[in-house]
Amino acid sequence: MVDNDQVMDAYQRIEGSANKTPVMTSRTLDGLVQASVFLKCENMQRGGSFKFRGAYNAVSLLPPELRNRGVIAHSSGNHAQALALVVRLMDIPAVVVMPENSSTVKIEAVRGYGANIVKCQPTLESRQETTGKLIEERGYTLIHPYDNETVIAGAGTACHELLSQVSNLDYIFCPIGGGGLISGTSIAAKGLIPDVKVMGVEPEKAQDAYLSFTSGELVQNVSTDTVADGLRTYLCQRTFDIIKHNVDEIVLVSEEEIVAAMRFLWERMKLVVEPSGAVSLAGLLKIKEKVFNARVGVIISGGNVDLEAFFRDYERRL
Amino acid sequence: MVDNDQVMDAYQRIEGSANKTPVMTSRTLDGLVQASVFLKCENMQRGGSFKFRGAYNAVSLLPPELRNRGVIAHSSGNHAQALALVVRLMDIPAVVVMPENSSTVKIEAVRGYGANIVKCQPTLESRQETTGKLIEERGYTLIHPYDNETVIAGAGTACHELLSQVSNLDYIFCPIGGGGLISGTSIAAKGLIPDVKVMGVEPEKAQDAYLSFTSGELVQNVSTDTVADGLRTYLCQRTFDIIKHNVDEIVLVSEEEIVAAMRFLWERMKLVVEPSGAVSLAGLLKIKEKVFNARVGVIISGGNVDLEAFFRDYERRL
Repeated sequence: MVDNDQVMDAYQRIEGSANKTPVMTSRTLDGLVQASVFLKCENMQRGGSFKFRGAYNAVSLLPPELRNRGVIAHSSGNHAQALALVVRLMDIPAVVVMPENSSTVKIEAVRGYGANIVKCQPTLESRQETTGKLIEERGYTLIHPYDNETVIAGAGTACHELLSQVSNLDYIFCPIGGGGLISGTSIAAKGLIPDVKVMGVEPEKAQDAYLSFTSGELVQNVSTDTVADGLRTYLCQRTFDIIKHNVDEIVLVSEEEIVAAMRFLWERMKLVVEPSGAVSLAGLLKIKEKVFNARVGVIISGGNVDLEAFFRDYERRL
Repeated sequence: MVDNDQVMDAYQRIEGSANKTPVMTSRTLDGLVQASVFLKCENMQRGGSFKFRGAYNAVSLLPPELRNRGVIAHSSGNHAQALALVVRLMDIPAVVVMPENSSTVKIEAVRGYGANIVKCQPTLESRQETTGKLIEERGYTLIHPYDNETVIAGAGTACHELLSQVSNLDYIFCPIGGGGLISGTSIAAKGLIPDVKVMGVEPEKAQDAYLSFTSGELVQNVSTDTVADGLRTYLCQRTFDIIKHNVDEIVLVSEEEIVAAMRFLWERMKLVVEPSGAVSLAGLLKIKEKVFNARVGVIISGGNVDLEAFFRDYERRL
C-alpha cells in the first residue's frame, strides 16, 4: 500500500513544476457552516485539476528507457489534459486514447498541449483494445488515472501541501471518483494528523464507493448519470483497500446539492470550479452540523468547465 | 487633493473589516506577456468588488450624528452593493436609489444586504431629483461612488495592500470609470514607489478619460455602449485633477479585447471576473511589448457577473 513517505517523495519531485495552489477562505462560508473552512484550490493547478500532480510524479519515476519510448492514457477528462501537459514539459511522446464522441473542447485541450490523440468507440472494450494494441506495437507505458501507486502518491501531495499551509485541521472533505485523490489525501492526512477525519463525498448517482464502503465488497456503479462527470468512474481494488483502511465516512450528495455548491463557489467566492470539484463542498454543506466549530479542509479538485457557450453569448452581444 | 497619508489611514480603518484579497499569478500569463504579472483580486473583496473599501472608509468617517441618520447612494452596480453591505455591518439606515430598469439580480443583491431601495426613472434628472428629495426630507448623507475624498482614499487601499504583498513593481494597470479607483491607486502607488508607472485602461466605447487626459480638458462620454458596465460613467473634476497629476498613460481597449481578457481569467486562471474587472488585463495584453521583463501589478476590480442564465442551464440538465 502507498505510504506517506511516497507522498513526501512525490512532493519533492513535483515542487517547482506543479503550482503551489492557494487556500481560499470566506467569511460567508464560515458563517454558513459555523466552522473554519479552508478550500484547497486544485482548480488552479496546472492543467486545471489535481491530476497534474499524479501524472508528473508517475512519468518522472519511469526508467529513462521506458519514458523515452512514450506514455499512453485513456481518458476524456482531466487526466488526459494533465498527462499531455506533463509530456510536453518533459518532451517525450504521448498518446491519449479518447472516445470519438468526446467534446471538441476536450479534444482541443489535449491536442493543444501537443499529445497525439487516437480515437476509439465510446465503449470500455474498444478503449481497452485500442490502448492494448498501441502498447504492444509501440512499447508505450500506460499511466492509469488512479490504479497506480505513483499516481496516488502524487495526488496526495495536494493534501500534504494543504497541511503545510493550514494547521490543526479536524476534517478533510474530498470527492471520490476512481478513488485516487482520496487515497492519496487520506494517506497524507493521517500520516501527519492521525486523528483527522477523512470524509469522502460521492454523487448519489455514482455511488459505487459508498456501496462498496458500507458493504465491504467492491461493487461497480449501476448508473453514472451525474453532472459531476469526473466522478463517473469506479474504484479499483487498490483504491478500495486504501479507502477501507483510511476513510472515516462517505457522504452522498444529490445533483441539486452539487450544482448549489458549485454556484456558491462561482457567485460568492468568484472561483471557477467544475461540478466534480464542488462535490466535496456539497458534502460539507450537507453534514455541517457534524463539524460545528471545527477546522475543515476541503479539496476542490478541478475547474475545467466548458465555457464556450457562455462566452459565445457574451461575444454575440458585442 | 487626497494624499497617501489618507490612504494609509483608510487602510488602518478598514483592515479586519475588508478582506485582504489574494494576489494571483500564472505561468501562462507571464509567458504570454514576457513579464512578471501580479493580479490583485478585488473580485474577491467583500461585496464582490473594490467598492467595499471606499464605502467602508467613507461611512466610518462620518460624524456619529450624521451616520445614525443614514446614508444614501445612487447606483445600480457595485457601489450600491458595497454600501448596502457596509451599512448592514454598522447597523445604520441606508437608501439606494436605483433606476427602475435595473436587473432583478442587482436589485436582489442590494436588497439582500438589507438596504432600502427607491426606484427612479432611468435618467440622470430623475436620479438626482429623487436623491436630492430624500436627502432634504430625511437628512441622509450622500456617499458618492467616486467624487468623494474618503471614497478615493479607501479605493487606494487595494493598491497599498498590493504593495505590501509584492515588492518592486514597475507598472500598475488599473481600469478607469469615474476615476475613483485609479485616483486612489495612483496616490498609493506613487506615494510608495515614486517612479512606478501608473497605466489607466479604458474601453474605447467610453473613452472620456482618454479624451480628457490627452486634451487637458474634462469631457464627458459621447457613447457608453460598452460591455464593461462598471466603466460607463465619467470623470469628475476631482478625479480628473488626480489623474492629470499621477497617471502616466491611458490605454484604450476594444470590446473584443475586454471579453478575451475576461475569458483568459475564467478559463486559464479560474477566476470569475466581470468585464470591467478584466479591462486592466486587456490593457496590459494590448501593450505588452512595453513591459518586457518588468514587474507588473494589475488591479482586477470586481467579479459581479450575472450567472443566472448559466446556472439555469446547468440546473435544467439535471
